[in-house]
Amino acid sequence: MTAPFTLARLGTAGREVPVVRVGDRVLDARGVTADYDAGFFADDGIARLGSALDTLPEFRGDGTRVGAPIARPGKIVCIGLNYRDHAEETGAALPDEPVIFMKDPSTLVGPFDDVLIPRGSEKTDWEVELGVVIGTTARYLDSPDEALKHVAGYAVSHDVSERGFQLERGGQWDKGKSCETFNPFGPDLVPADQVADPQRLGLRLWVNGELRQDGSTENMLFSIAHVIWYLSQFMVLHPGDVINTGTPAGVALGLPGNPYLRAGDTVELEIDGLGRASQRMVQA
Amino acid sequence: MTAPFTLARLGTAGREVPVVRVGDRVLDARGVTADYDAGFFADDGIARLGSALDTLPEFRGDGTRVGAPIARPGKIVCIGLNYRDHAEETGAALPDEPVIFMKDPSTLVGPFDDVLIPRGSEKTDWEVELGVVIGTTARYLDSPDEALKHVAGYAVSHDVSERGFQLERGGQWDKGKSCETFNPFGPDLVPADQVADPQRLGLRLWVNGELRQDGSTENMLFSIAHVIWYLSQFMVLHPGDVINTGTPAGVALGLPGNPYLRAGDTVELEIDGLGRASQRMVQA
Repeated sequence: MTAPFTLARLGTAGREVPVVRVGDRVLDARGVTADYDAGFFADDGIARLGSALDTLPEFRGDGTRVGAPIARPGKIVCIGLNYRDHAEETGAALPDEPVIFMKDPSTLVGPFDDVLIPRGSEKTDWEVELGVVIGTTARYLDSPDEALKHVAGYAVSHDVSERGFQLERGGQWDKGKSCETFNPFGPDLVPADQVADPQRLGLRLWVNGELRQDGSTENMLFSIAHVIWYLSQFMVLHPGDVINTGTPAGVALGLPGNPYLRAGDTVELEIDGLGRASQRMVQA
Repeated sequence: MTAPFTLARLGTAGREVPVVRVGDRVLDARGVTADYDAGFFADDGIARLGSALDTLPEFRGDGTRVGAPIARPGKIVCIGLNYRDHAEETGAALPDEPVIFMKDPSTLVGPFDDVLIPRGSEKTDWEVELGVVIGTTARYLDSPDEALKHVAGYAVSHDVSERGFQLERGGQWDKGKSCETFNPFGPDLVPADQVADPQRLGLRLWVNGELRQDGSTENMLFSIAHVIWYLSQFMVLHPGDVINTGTPAGVALGLPGNPYLRAGDTVELEIDGLGRASQRMVQA
């Protein structure tokens, strides 16, 4: 039995060091892996990390910046309209099956990094989501019952979205989902076996201190297990891949007056047990 | 002035060796780079390769399998409905601006690898496309005039598509574009400076020997330069990223009787000056 621990990456962008947090301690994980990447997850990295905790030295580097807790993923797949209240606020019909779209994997940034309002944007919007990181390859799973064993862990994910680009520029959503810095992720990756029930987590998001989203993963239309099983029928999920599982109600698109994000705004978001993140909006 | 050369990768999947073809010679490029990946392109790799040709030894490895000519890209961005005749055959309106969607980067496979017909698929379709590989970062380009200097090279790309998944399962196309093996790429990457005019290349595709697509990049609605400039307003294009620039008419979706692909079918495709590829369809 190992102590509860979480994974994080500290240091300047592109030079993050993998660390482990155990209580108040921050341990340098480079004795186990150079990074939290596809190879790490594929090689049962989280279990190896747990076994090695006693051997890891204290982290002595610069912890000023927190990076995303995983290296750039092979893909980021997203589920649209996966909470009833969010589907309703956007005026969309409830989907019969998961709606899938993708984000450019290079949009993944740290949980406290600035988010860039794209040039020409008037409708940059927020979305707090439960982020799932895949641990082992999932391909044509027989049933949702097999799905959760393919999860390495969970993290807070911000699926930043430009609604004009997404909805009014041809109809394929990817155009409004892949702008630079559009996927703050973390702070920590919490190993799956340390999340008692991922389907009972509160998610909250504030803009300039005002609570805008206050949901629970209980209210997903398609459960995490269903989503992973479903995706595995259409694509191969690889270790280190990210799934953004959808957002609850309360986005600017659905609010009176559509109070979209402007440079200078601050977004804070948190999920029960997964920590809290905060980003400032800056003009690109 | 160096001799004309092209880039290829030979060897079993996941263990390909980067080589250079100069006339009939095949040279081992490992003295210059471990792989044709983002770091290679970012570090002016093609120019370095050209300068080093005289120093490279003959390739002595197993050349039986041809891999994709680049390592797994950071992203694959695709342009929909970018040829007038193809937009018309699908019954879609001509787009006012490029339609963008994405493919899972792990779908990239070799030009002679088998393509898997997904389980549950009844509408697997072909699409020959000019593939563009990005050489240097493109972000908010001022004009299309600046765009082509960001291209490392060109290759034959097969944007395999499952039309039921793409069009009848929620409306976001990514669902029918990211199935396992759905992006054969190559055989070679031809450096951009060896393609006199990428906007005047014939593209052809045969199914079981029957010519199905016979187009020219002259007939793109949005030119390669326009597409790169346009994409750079919505996302950052990184070295090694792939753009599939759209397909001309003649896909199964647009043909009488919709002769979709079945296990056992063979697709051959070629683009002027970029070589020829061939894939057998196999049930997943």
